[in-house]
Amino acid sequence: MTATDPAGDRELAQLYADFESYNLSPLWTQRDDLLPFVPSPRAVPFVWRWSELFALAERSGELVPVGRGGERRAIALANPGLPGTPYATPTLWCAIQYLAGHETAPEHRHSPNAFRFVVEGEGVWTVVDGDPVAMRRGDLLLTPGWHFHGHHNDTDQPMAWIDGLDLPFAHYTDVGFFEFGSERVTDEASPSVSRNERLWAYPGLRPLSELDDRASSPLMAYRWEATDAALREQLALEDAGYPATVGQGHAAIRYVNPTTGGDVMPTLRCEFHRFRPGASTRPRHEVGSSVWQVFEGQGTVVLGNEEHRISTGDLFVVPSWVPWSLHADTGFDLFRFDDGPIVERLRFDRTHVPGERRG
Amino acid sequence: MTATDPAGDRELAQLYADFESYNLSPLWTQRDDLLPFVPSPRAVPFVWRWSELFALAERSGELVPVGRGGERRAIALANPGLPGTPYATPTLWCAIQYLAGHETAPEHRHSPNAFRFVVEGEGVWTVVDGDPVAMRRGDLLLTPGWHFHGHHNDTDQPMAWIDGLDLPFAHYTDVGFFEFGSERVTDEASPSVSRNERLWAYPGLRPLSELDDRASSPLMAYRWEATDAALREQLALEDAGYPATVGQGHAAIRYVNPTTGGDVMPTLRCEFHRFRPGASTRPRHEVGSSVWQVFEGQGTVVLGNEEHRISTGDLFVVPSWVPWSLHADTGFDLFRFDDGPIVERLRFDRTHVPGERRG
Amino acid sequence: MTATDPAGDRELAQLYADFESYNLSPLWTQRDDLLPFVPSPRAVPFVWRWSELFALAERSGELVPVGRGGERRAIALANPGLPGTPYATPTLWCAIQYLAGHETAPEHRHSPNAFRFVVEGEGVWTVVDGDPVAMRRGDLLLTPGWHFHGHHNDTDQPMAWIDGLDLPFAHYTDVGFFEFGSERVTDEASPSVSRNERLWAYPGLRPLSELDDRASSPLMAYRWEATDAALREQLALEDAGYPATVGQGHAAIRYVNPTTGGDVMPTLRCEFHRFRPGASTRPRHEVGSSVWQVFEGQGTVVLGNEEHRISTGDLFVVPSWVPWSLHADTGFDLFRFDDGPIVERLRFDRTHVPGERRG
Amino acid sequence: MTATDPAGDRELAQLYADFESYNLSPLWTQRDDLLPFVPSPRAVPFVWRWSELFALAERSGELVPVGRGGERRAIALANPGLPGTPYATPTLWCAIQYLAGHETAPEHRHSPNAFRFVVEGEGVWTVVDGDPVAMRRGDLLLTPGWHFHGHHNDTDQPMAWIDGLDLPFAHYTDVGFFEFGSERVTDEASPSVSRNERLWAYPGLRPLSELDDRASSPLMAYRWEATDAALREQLALEDAGYPATVGQGHAAIRYVNPTTGGDVMPTLRCEFHRFRPGASTRPRHEVGSSVWQVFEGQGTVVLGNEEHRISTGDLFVVPSWVPWSLHADTGFDLFRFDDGPIVERLRFDRTHVPGERRG
Repeated sequence: MTATDPAGDRELAQLYADFESYNLSPLWTQRDDLLPFVPSPRAVPFVWRWSELFALAERSGELVPVGRGGERRAIALANPGLPGTPYATPTLWCAIQYLAGHETAPEHRHSPNAFRFVVEGEGVWTVVDGDPVAMRRGDLLLTPGWHFHGHHNDTDQPMAWIDGLDLPFAHYTDVGFFEFGSERVTDEASPSVSRNERLWAYPGLRPLSELDDRASSPLMAYRWEATDAALREQLALEDAGYPATVGQGHAAIRYVNPTTGGDVMPTLRCEFHRFRPGASTRPRHEVGSSVWQVFEGQGTVVLGNEEHRISTGDLFVVPSWVPWSLHADTGFDLFRFDDGPIVERLRFDRTHVPGERRG
Repeated sequence: MTATDPAGDRELAQLYADFESYNLSPLWTQRDDLLPFVPSPRAVPFVWRWSELFALAERSGELVPVGRGGERRAIALANPGLPGTPYATPTLWCAIQYLAGHETAPEHRHSPNAFRFVVEGEGVWTVVDGDPVAMRRGDLLLTPGWHFHGHHNDTDQPMAWIDGLDLPFAHYTDVGFFEFGSERVTDEASPSVSRNERLWAYPGLRPLSELDDRASSPLMAYRWEATDAALREQLALEDAGYPATVGQGHAAIRYVNPTTGGDVMPTLRCEFHRFRPGASTRPRHEVGSSVWQVFEGQGTVVLGNEEHRISTGDLFVVPSWVPWSLHADTGFDLFRFDDGPIVERLRFDRTHVPGERRG
Repeated sequence: MTATDPAGDRELAQLYADFESYNLSPLWTQRDDLLPFVPSPRAVPFVWRWSELFALAERSGELVPVGRGGERRAIALANPGLPGTPYATPTLWCAIQYLAGHETAPEHRHSPNAFRFVVEGEGVWTVVDGDPVAMRRGDLLLTPGWHFHGHHNDTDQPMAWIDGLDLPFAHYTDVGFFEFGSERVTDEASPSVSRNERLWAYPGLRPLSELDDRASSPLMAYRWEATDAALREQLALEDAGYPATVGQGHAAIRYVNPTTGGDVMPTLRCEFHRFRPGASTRPRHEVGSSVWQVFEGQGTVVLGNEEHRISTGDLFVVPSWVPWSLHADTGFDLFRFDDGPIVERLRFDRTHVPGERRG
Repeated sequence: MTATDPAGDRELAQLYADFESYNLSPLWTQRDDLLPFVPSPRAVPFVWRWSELFALAERSGELVPVGRGGERRAIALANPGLPGTPYATPTLWCAIQYLAGHETAPEHRHSPNAFRFVVEGEGVWTVVDGDPVAMRRGDLLLTPGWHFHGHHNDTDQPMAWIDGLDLPFAHYTDVGFFEFGSERVTDEASPSVSRNERLWAYPGLRPLSELDDRASSPLMAYRWEATDAALREQLALEDAGYPATVGQGHAAIRYVNPTTGGDVMPTLRCEFHRFRPGASTRPRHEVGSSVWQVFEGQGTVVLGNEEHRISTGDLFVVPSWVPWSLHADTGFDLFRFDDGPIVERLRFDRTHVPGERRG
């Protein structure tokens, strides 16, 4: 890789120039960037504050209309390590979306997968392929790829929530399609329970008319009452001496597709974690990136070497292989989503918890 | 296949005798029995009356103790076409089990898969691997293969229910193991909700501590309230013009393993069907056999060419390929179990509904 | 389970009589037969001698024509433990089939799965869905369920081979369909390579026109040359110090469906085992039954407690859970088929090798 | 989305500035870039000429040593639409690698998956986890993720081939690990057949010691003789009137993992296509990108609206959704690899052939 004389230097310079003119690029000068010893993400760990996000969303609500073309009043977390992009991580998009009283976000569909998670408020219905789905605090609502969806606020009050998508991934890999739908939502009813829930939201019961497995969950709403109960019971079982939690004082569920028991969508994994006051996790390295939102309570997260105090509504991102750990000061509830299905289906998954035997 | 002269006759007779002495058997004399054009079960369609079953179970309760060795006070449907066996069909075993007040059926485990379905009554807890599971009207309770289980009646009143197993299949194919457990149930508590339900009975929520898929459902109790609601909503959706039912006025669910979305156990399929008054099904031929119990209401079933009036508690069996159809006089609820997983996993499944395009 | 007085005796007798008249059967009197501690097959281990089989097949060739109705001149191994049936085991059928020079066995199809294995001779073509497949020594030829097939002998010499089917299983579970086809084979050509081989018999190469997975292998012929080479190389790798064999001096391959890597047919597993002179296996209990044929060489098999000397062409059956072990006196080649896919897909598989840690 | 007065303009400008200072980014100003109606890749269709590539590789051979650190003398196709990157497409890396006589490329391993395809020459052995694999014209050689591999040239002559990796994908998604191995290859033998082939290269035969499925193919070498024969036979079958090809005069195989029948590696699909003289394909849009190399013959490829004449050794890339079609002037053989497994496992796959019914 070294040339020993001026003539050699010239030839080498000419070689590199020729590479460029022929649209070629040598591996040997960039091997360590292309093939790092461990994942070396450009994305950085970062925390966004809900109070700031919400205030900006409110101002947007006053200044920016919502409608066809822009489609959504959504403000995305833009990772400082990925300047010029609206990406939380290379694979994940996360935004706060804001809809003022009686506003409508028009219907459209796209191949990227999406969900909404509600940290506070209610009053909006998201209409998924014509099925109005109420959005309430603590709910996870899905709009899997290529399902039409629009949102309308049925109240006088604004509502904000977070959107999660695999948009950066879909954009990078050039797999995305998009289509406009109705300007108004196609069904303006505001039922407390959607039709998909009436078909699918029974534990272990599958409609006999729906035996074909689905790439994405046919259940579009995962209600807070069930999530809360599941976590409460895990901790109660732990108290009673039975295995139920993932760690001492750490209950957690994964939202799953009832037709397969697997992730809700082919690219996105959604989970909810609850910690008892005082509980904590060991630092963990994971391949793939995640976004977390505090749903309730206070605690700290250590991202790499930095500790951050976080409380209700705050969001943070964990780039690939950056070690993270959580400590709960109060009872501490967090929603998490990540690109685990991408990583696992393509067999790149690895986890490392220093001090634990590698699994 | 015909011999033309006496010498030939003698030689042929000698050949057949030699076959026998060498433990051999020619195909050509029995091809049509071994390879019928369509399945030709020896088992026959048959109806058992709940009133008769229950009365005999009561008399057994007075005359026959329950305990180690006999293990269960269970009286099996013995298909008249399979004389000398206690089998409902070649693959399925179905019995009424009866437990008097404060009796205990001792714990054991076996590789055959089992469940219980409760058509009336309550007060017994089935203890599955140490986890007491309340049995109440309309509930389906699982004891998958090789799980210890015993039953104890916590009340002064007797209780009866039906047991379903793949015992004839397991016995025929020589795959069964059996082991005695505790003489008493290992946990005599009588909680209204079992621990497995507290972990698993949330729609679309999977404990993060339980990510390995299971051959059998980890959820041991499917409660009537959920089944009833699911069926009621299917009919309500049908009323509102949405696809939800399997046929006009015919709602149905399949009980599934939440870790896979598939059948509750590797050999047994369980379903619940609800018909509006007046609804009926077209005659249907299915490969594989099923057992049905009327849970509530009155109607008729046509099995082959015979029509039977049936009502609450009555049981009937449908051998393979025998056409069956149902007609509801009142609102009509039926529980069904069958060997569908055996037939499908081994790729022998076929269905024929005369007049429908073959699927 | 005991009645204490004459009146009780009478009542109990009446109860049992009533059970019978109502087509019911108590569990408690037959629990130990229905639920044995370990599989207790009625089928017994047994050895059939090729010389005897072949001689009887030849006599059949002289006395019994082959044609429509009887369909095949096949003489089945009739397990002495299953009197009155032509079954090798409860799930497996195995027969010697014999076709004299220029004879034809007419085409038909059935849902039971079938294969042929050739211990000696050649000259017959089996025509599978119109594709003539040469049968030669050491070849495994498939006719999966519902494929039309007939055989014709293109030479002046008779030929014999063994047939294996899941017929007892299909018959017991009532899943079988049957249909007559052409009286003559539909293609009388005698190519050395069949069309399915020309499409599929390349290691790791899949036709782009055939991307849908198949329940059964689309490759109908597994040629001796490949089997022999694969086994020879395993032993050579073992000699060179690399892991390749299943035990010291014991090479083995499983025939698989190239579209899935799994068993060739949904109910039948086929394998070929080769032992160096002097090699042996430890006694092994397996759930499920198997049939073996010595392809070449001499050795002994221990079935349960009995040792049998066996040599080329001899067949033996191993009922479920009966321990078997093999010892090779010479180089020792054996073909084996079993009901492993049934046992495994339904999750009843267990193996026990005394002295080994249970897997 | 428009502000109507100067005060509003100021407020809006302040809002956007605040977004930036808080690391946020509005969706509504960039929706059409992020969510295009159809995939709108930055990568462009492009053709590289083998003669140019090879000449540059030769010059590199003279000027640039190969060794630890740079690791490989590999010169990557750098898509002009992705300036500053050495990427053929956003997911695929493709390079010409060159090894002079008796040179060694040191061993290393990485989680990205890799293969080599040989358009001409021989004499190099790639040593995969200690198993030396000969590289010859027309062969496909795998080094799946996390397998150690090095290459050594056992002759006096240089050899060049192409490498394919999922490196851009792994780099973008931050999933890559890397580790140095031995400076010399760990086994300098030069057998004509590798040990993995001796275990795995038999059609439909699986070693009984290797029953666990593999994420990547355990067969590391797919030899030209088999590929050539498979394609030749497809065309011969087409001539004889049987279905075998993917289009008139267009034979093709996919290289597969024999343990699953699926793609050779979790992220990369490899195929070989053969066209008769005069054959052509219809323009086809596919989600996902591909790289092709002409193995032999001459023809044209239309990429988008541009037609290119191509011949032996030439390479071209097809970005996502850019329509491509091929026309063969002579017999025309092409190797192709693509990111199909990524696209399909994540359920983004779509194909459109104008004039064909959408599948």
